[in-house]
Amino acid sequence: MIDVGIVGGSGYTGGELLRLLANHPEAKVTAVTSRKLSGKPVSLVHPHLKSIYSLNFEALSAKEAAERCDIVFTGVPHGTAMDWVPELLDAGARVIDLSSDYRLPVDVFEKTYGMKHRAPREAVFGLTELHPEVAKAKLVGNPGCYPTGATLAVAPLAKAGLVDRVVYDSKSGISGAGIDPTETSHYPNMAQNVIPYKLTTHRHVPEIKQELERLSPGIRVNFTPHVIPSVRGILTTAHVFAREDAVETLQDKSKVAQIYRDFYKNAPFVRMADSIPRLSSVRGSNFCDISFEPEKDSDRLVVISAIDNLVKGASGQAIQNMNLMAGLDQKTGLWFPGMAP
Amino acid sequence: MIDVGIVGGSGYTGGELLRLLANHPEAKVTAVTSRKLSGKPVSLVHPHLKSIYSLNFEALSAKEAAERCDIVFTGVPHGTAMDWVPELLDAGARVIDLSSDYRLPVDVFEKTYGMKHRAPREAVFGLTELHPEVAKAKLVGNPGCYPTGATLAVAPLAKAGLVDRVVYDSKSGISGAGIDPTETSHYPNMAQNVIPYKLTTHRHVPEIKQELERLSPGIRVNFTPHVIPSVRGILTTAHVFAREDAVETLQDKSKVAQIYRDFYKNAPFVRMADSIPRLSSVRGSNFCDISFEPEKDSDRLVVISAIDNLVKGASGQAIQNMNLMAGLDQKTGLWFPGMAP
Amino acid sequence: MIDVGIVGGSGYTGGELLRLLANHPEAKVTAVTSRKLSGKPVSLVHPHLKSIYSLNFEALSAKEAAERCDIVFTGVPHGTAMDWVPELLDAGARVIDLSSDYRLPVDVFEKTYGMKHRAPREAVFGLTELHPEVAKAKLVGNPGCYPTGATLAVAPLAKAGLVDRVVYDSKSGISGAGIDPTETSHYPNMAQNVIPYKLTTHRHVPEIKQELERLSPGIRVNFTPHVIPSVRGILTTAHVFAREDAVETLQDKSKVAQIYRDFYKNAPFVRMADSIPRLSSVRGSNFCDISFEPEKDSDRLVVISAIDNLVKGASGQAIQNMNLMAGLDQKTGLWFPGMAP
Amino acid sequence: MIDVGIVGGSGYTGGELLRLLANHPEAKVTAVTSRKLSGKPVSLVHPHLKSIYSLNFEALSAKEAAERCDIVFTGVPHGTAMDWVPELLDAGARVIDLSSDYRLPVDVFEKTYGMKHRAPREAVFGLTELHPEVAKAKLVGNPGCYPTGATLAVAPLAKAGLVDRVVYDSKSGISGAGIDPTETSHYPNMAQNVIPYKLTTHRHVPEIKQELERLSPGIRVNFTPHVIPSVRGILTTAHVFAREDAVETLQDKSKVAQIYRDFYKNAPFVRMADSIPRLSSVRGSNFCDISFEPEKDSDRLVVISAIDNLVKGASGQAIQNMNLMAGLDQKTGLWFPGMAP
Repeated sequence: MIDVGIVGGSGYTGGELLRLLANHPEAKVTAVTSRKLSGKPVSLVHPHLKSIYSLNFEALSAKEAAERCDIVFTGVPHGTAMDWVPELLDAGARVIDLSSDYRLPVDVFEKTYGMKHRAPREAVFGLTELHPEVAKAKLVGNPGCYPTGATLAVAPLAKAGLVDRVVYDSKSGISGAGIDPTETSHYPNMAQNVIPYKLTTHRHVPEIKQELERLSPGIRVNFTPHVIPSVRGILTTAHVFAREDAVETLQDKSKVAQIYRDFYKNAPFVRMADSIPRLSSVRGSNFCDISFEPEKDSDRLVVISAIDNLVKGASGQAIQNMNLMAGLDQKTGLWFPGMAP
Repeated sequence: MIDVGIVGGSGYTGGELLRLLANHPEAKVTAVTSRKLSGKPVSLVHPHLKSIYSLNFEALSAKEAAERCDIVFTGVPHGTAMDWVPELLDAGARVIDLSSDYRLPVDVFEKTYGMKHRAPREAVFGLTELHPEVAKAKLVGNPGCYPTGATLAVAPLAKAGLVDRVVYDSKSGISGAGIDPTETSHYPNMAQNVIPYKLTTHRHVPEIKQELERLSPGIRVNFTPHVIPSVRGILTTAHVFAREDAVETLQDKSKVAQIYRDFYKNAPFVRMADSIPRLSSVRGSNFCDISFEPEKDSDRLVVISAIDNLVKGASGQAIQNMNLMAGLDQKTGLWFPGMAP
Repeated sequence: MIDVGIVGGSGYTGGELLRLLANHPEAKVTAVTSRKLSGKPVSLVHPHLKSIYSLNFEALSAKEAAERCDIVFTGVPHGTAMDWVPELLDAGARVIDLSSDYRLPVDVFEKTYGMKHRAPREAVFGLTELHPEVAKAKLVGNPGCYPTGATLAVAPLAKAGLVDRVVYDSKSGISGAGIDPTETSHYPNMAQNVIPYKLTTHRHVPEIKQELERLSPGIRVNFTPHVIPSVRGILTTAHVFAREDAVETLQDKSKVAQIYRDFYKNAPFVRMADSIPRLSSVRGSNFCDISFEPEKDSDRLVVISAIDNLVKGASGQAIQNMNLMAGLDQKTGLWFPGMAP
Repeated sequence: MIDVGIVGGSGYTGGELLRLLANHPEAKVTAVTSRKLSGKPVSLVHPHLKSIYSLNFEALSAKEAAERCDIVFTGVPHGTAMDWVPELLDAGARVIDLSSDYRLPVDVFEKTYGMKHRAPREAVFGLTELHPEVAKAKLVGNPGCYPTGATLAVAPLAKAGLVDRVVYDSKSGISGAGIDPTETSHYPNMAQNVIPYKLTTHRHVPEIKQELERLSPGIRVNFTPHVIPSVRGILTTAHVFAREDAVETLQDKSKVAQIYRDFYKNAPFVRMADSIPRLSSVRGSNFCDISFEPEKDSDRLVVISAIDNLVKGASGQAIQNMNLMAGLDQKTGLWFPGMAP
């Protein structure tokens, strides 16, 4: 049994870790920290967890948390995680960080987030399907929600050297923006709308580029995010443009299908969908559903991927990583369907 | 042409007054105040008004506003309106107050809102259909959104002396809670939910009781509000229970229909609907749609009313009152349909 | 291991049985019937189940289904279930019927549904918390979604003899209307609306009356349903009016709380909520959350209950019943939290 | 006063024409046809129009309609409009066709819609801002909803010869799919989702290509549509890629702004938005709001446009065309703001 800790358990990713770990057969949550809510039951901010957990939030230090846990998930904001991680590691815990502090090389991090990195450490990028080396990692930088869906959609084609350029147009549920009310999350603003933002400058872009360039040097990537009136889910529309010599290949549906099948043959959470994926098929689950369609007489292939941003895009993938780190089957505790309708 | 001012124009009721007055043939908005936004165009917070208005917010005093306007709408919070209204009146303007400061007798106001009333003035309760005397009023206390839909639904039956008790179960769009984000209005909380609140203690209850008791002394009233995942609209389900001697009458659909027709024969904005009213039929308009159904072998009659909380429940009714005050047909500038779908 | 069959597996309750049974440690789905879809994989209509199930729909007879299964869930429409149930029972299977064919005495059924009952059989009403005798039943009539939330909200007070009248105002997600598109379920009609229907004549009323009258003869019940823009969930607002001699008791919060605690002390799926229940706290789970508030200086107590109509209101409760029938802990396979946000 | 007829008035575009024309000072609806609903009041299917119109649907022939009207809007499905239009024209009416029958050259139409065109006639493409010659037209082919928002977003840049390729990713409210319930419009499928469809083959593409190629021969266009959980509105994300020699120009925000201003200087319904446009700012109105942002160190410019699909994307633009045809200011009867929130 793995003893698990959650640093910063009062937000959505913390709540989701608790929800998902409630029935994990090999893990037990032994500590959930929150300075603000110390002493209060976790069901106070997560009323859906009432009766399931009798845990209270605690105001633990990194050292105390590490002493009680084999693996610690850090669910605090970027810029704060770096204050926890080194001490957790030094005290012997393995860490899965859900912030953006350990996903990028230090220079890229500092440029992207406009802040000094106070505590760089070696980390593995936790996009599980592309990084089996998480199994050995002491520290995993769990990917952003957008990069997960975006990268999984195109990685097989990039690896095969077929892609000149990808134009990503992503649509996310608003839970990605967190538990605190904002002008955008105000129901009268979000309902019956679709809100593009950071049209050309989203901070997740460097993660996507890093992963795709690793597979296909020189690939060009553009990305624009939107929030839609949905709580959960990210649907990514990837407009893939073929390299000059790959136009014909991308037109061949069976060849493309084979490329995906081969690439994901050991990836149980990636499903090639029988029709265009819907968020409702993956809601609450760790699946990433993918389908594609070539445009006739064109160099474009449209790929659609759907994930739950809080599961495969955050807490579910973190547990998938935990499973590998603990030597378990990656499906352990995560092998359940999405909630439709 | 009526010169109109809006004190506190940066919220939803202010924005809605501007939207509705944009095409009013006899009124012209000559001043919109906002201390915070003074000097900024109204389209900054109301981007839907761009090109329609070239007005800027101004930081006017009550006296300055009154000098420029014949009629002033006060759209500031309760407790603040009373700081504006006396000075506006004294400077010669007629006032339609959209806060709750001038809707109730002073003692009831003070008990309900838990604050001292610093500036009581004589006012007419602006539920237009029941108070034609607004025509002569210097000061109108425009009713709350819930009381408008709730009172109109039951007033004819109350007046006819048929009602022992009404149990109101009201469902409101979240725009009633205002333009500022809150925990309740946070999209992940509001979407796919229905949120009961102030189950037995909503501050609008005294307005409803005041109106119904005027028509039917001794009538018993219970009220529970809910917010639903809708921006606009209030649908009120009125469970009406007959007086012992009126059970048979309430069972008689044609008699009940006649009571409503008679009561509302001069009320163009009250429509007896051909089927159960929907919010979509009144959205954006000043209509109140009503239907009813008696329960067989029972003392209960269910009445449904639907209004747009920002129009008939606030700014539209305020303009309807303005029309009467100015000697115009009450339909002037308001005679347009709801926006469906 | 219980061998389980699902007759009529292509709708929402069928899909939900499959979703919930996917991780049940003591049950295995061995047959899912659908005449129309025979030979097709269940993931064709339930794409969220892809990779989780490799089952195909089959066009089995009742006898064939019974031979392969210990317990059969019938998820076909009312009026059709009665064509399956007797043969299933005669062939030795125990049956949990999710239609309305076996919930009411024959005469009440026939009056309510306006059809002849062709195959009456003895059945237990499967509101698990009130009917532990389901454990021995051959046939369980699983309750309607509205009666589950409505009855659980008021049963303790009714049993204590405190209630004169209940006025139920229920708000349901539209999934209760099934998987087939209708005028009401058309997104432009349902979104941003709240739609009252069958204001005084809903077919679930006799189930509620039957249960409450059993606990409190002479209790008066009124019920009005609404659909709200939510996929899942039923929130029931129960306006409870005290018997003349019970007004004081209903005003006493700690006494009322004690009555609920005592009544539900062996009911793990009923949670007394710390604040007003939200659909999001029970979504996807088998919980029923309840809270209440007395109205000061009044005979009214407002009780709110929240369930997921497809889980506690249908398939989850059916599995809860299956657990008892099989001698398992009722929580088996169902002890997981709702999905919030 | 223009006498106006609507052929096929029972759908969304018919209802919207009636809503918009209700307050048009120079037009009067004198006939609304519907074979199915002949003799019924228009408020039967459009309850929001009750009291506003006392019109009944009529089963008129084209000749009868033409005799009573100066201008006729045809709101029937594609393939049916061609059965009405020639006869209407021959009987002397001018026609604005809201179907797709008169938007494309016959060969393109036949290829796109897979049917023979039985009655080709000369028509002007009614994208008002690009085709002032509608003023003289006998027959206007009113554009599709997607082409309106997509073309307006990019036309100024195309005209300036700056664009190599546009990748359109469009998000539409579901009202675009019409008044009849479908699998996609079923609330449980649409809510909390975003549904891509016809990923590479939407029938509106030829309209967009026709307009942009006219302005910029050789321009490359890709288009993928999605429906979002919104009733109204189309938000178009146009990923614009610069011609090799235009990269620097597209990086220059003030140059780009000037290009838009010049192009739309006589187009009151196109608003250059102060921030990223929202559907809520144009809802119910005839405005098209546009903004743009260049991507640093890239050849990409992202342009966002927002329209109401039923107004500027259909019935509003049709009335705008009617105004020009009748020699009126194009703003007549259409100069009102969107409905926010």
